[in-house]
Amino acid sequence: MGIEYDGAPFCGWQTQPQRPTVQNTVEAAVARIACTKVRLVCAGRTDTGVHALGQVAHFDTLAQRPPSAWIRGVNAHLPGSIAVLWAHAVPDDFHARFSALGRHYEYLLVNRAVRPALGAAICGWFPSRLDLAAMRAAAAHLVGTHDFSAFRSSQCQAKSPLRDLRCLVIERDGDMIRFCLEANAFLHHMVRNIIGCLVYVGKGRFDPDWIGALLRSRDRSLAAPTFAPQGLYLTAVDYAPHWQLPILRGRRPFMAASA
Amino acid sequence: MGIEYDGAPFCGWQTQPQRPTVQNTVEAAVARIACTKVRLVCAGRTDTGVHALGQVAHFDTLAQRPPSAWIRGVNAHLPGSIAVLWAHAVPDDFHARFSALGRHYEYLLVNRAVRPALGAAICGWFPSRLDLAAMRAAAAHLVGTHDFSAFRSSQCQAKSPLRDLRCLVIERDGDMIRFCLEANAFLHHMVRNIIGCLVYVGKGRFDPDWIGALLRSRDRSLAAPTFAPQGLYLTAVDYAPHWQLPILRGRRPFMAASA
Repeated sequence: MGIEYDGAPFCGWQTQPQRPTVQNTVEAAVARIACTKVRLVCAGRTDTGVHALGQVAHFDTLAQRPPSAWIRGVNAHLPGSIAVLWAHAVPDDFHARFSALGRHYEYLLVNRAVRPALGAAICGWFPSRLDLAAMRAAAAHLVGTHDFSAFRSSQCQAKSPLRDLRCLVIERDGDMIRFCLEANAFLHHMVRNIIGCLVYVGKGRFDPDWIGALLRSRDRSLAAPTFAPQGLYLTAVDYAPHWQLPILRGRRPFMAASA
Repeated sequence: MGIEYDGAPFCGWQTQPQRPTVQNTVEAAVARIACTKVRLVCAGRTDTGVHALGQVAHFDTLAQRPPSAWIRGVNAHLPGSIAVLWAHAVPDDFHARFSALGRHYEYLLVNRAVRPALGAAICGWFPSRLDLAAMRAAAAHLVGTHDFSAFRSSQCQAKSPLRDLRCLVIERDGDMIRFCLEANAFLHHMVRNIIGCLVYVGKGRFDPDWIGALLRSRDRSLAAPTFAPQGLYLTAVDYAPHWQLPILRGRRPFMAASA
């Protein structure tokens, strides 16, 4: 199923004891329709406060229900902050995480002196004017297949620090900056650590080549702090066409523009 | 001063006893800086749940403070859902309401089967596909100077029902529809009543010419119900250039696009 959620009320995707998570909440709602416990596996385990427009998750069930039950039925048992967008039966060898070919994230950053009053929970904020050209030059160092250890959380459970960052685009529209990232997969905190480092360059603390040296150092302690989660969105997950999943590519987060 | 706010936590702009309103909240914060009570007068008294990106309000004070005190100082005493964007000293004959030459509103409507999970408090929602061409044809009947009694709340306190609707543009971007309206001024509930009637046309309940007949009838009881406040934003207020107010024209609400 494809899932949209507001990350603000949740302690991230993954189930934790005694804390509200997206996984817990969706599993409980699906169980109401399946009439039995289910276990969800997602494509990208988002952190506390991180949003999704195109999360994908699978579950195994023997329950036979019409497609509308897995969408409208489940939505009727979900809080307003989560919605199932689509549901599609898949063969047993489909796996939301291991079958995923790529992940798309976007980061929305309000770049103005005054903090955002509207949408404060769905945007990051940086008060000093950021130099887009410098950030783009820095970003160019990161695109490609690299060891991203310098941008990896100490809690990261991935076996390899190698990732193929296929695309990193930065756009400005008025006082909103949008970062679009695509990779085969991301390490824990990788996007927010990249944003933090790009902001260091954008505000002039380091020149763009610093990012290249940082990448080569593979030393997280040299990098900027992890940037705030509020502006981060998992926008889409790519799968091979033969799975015939609904295509919701191109979903984009809310965008505030100010001329 | 120019003010941005998220309307969700407030019972509208105007002061009411025992209820949280934007006016109360900003007056209390300004009083902390002025060290005396102040009374704010705004350009557009927004309703419960309606947002502002460009509200303008004035107050009289004898307090002399640097401009940063009226912005950063006041913001330090405001909740996260309200922010002062700018402050500017004006002559005594300036009046935020009576000097305003025009008001700009936008309405954001999510038009898809599944309710929005992200941004549910800052968008309206309509589940059936709306016919944009029909809504545009209907909107054309409203542009110009008309008696808008059919789109006026029974609580409206305006002396005249005549308003000059200068512009009504409707755009679709993926599953988001944006309505942009500009008028010299709006009657109470006028924008939300117009949206409700345009949705009636967009879903095929009435043809576009119905709006023209409705306008001529001046009968509110024939119109559609007032549409939900969540998607409505006061985006800008126009004043004559000689007041030399900061120009924040072109501020636009958050926009979700999905291809």
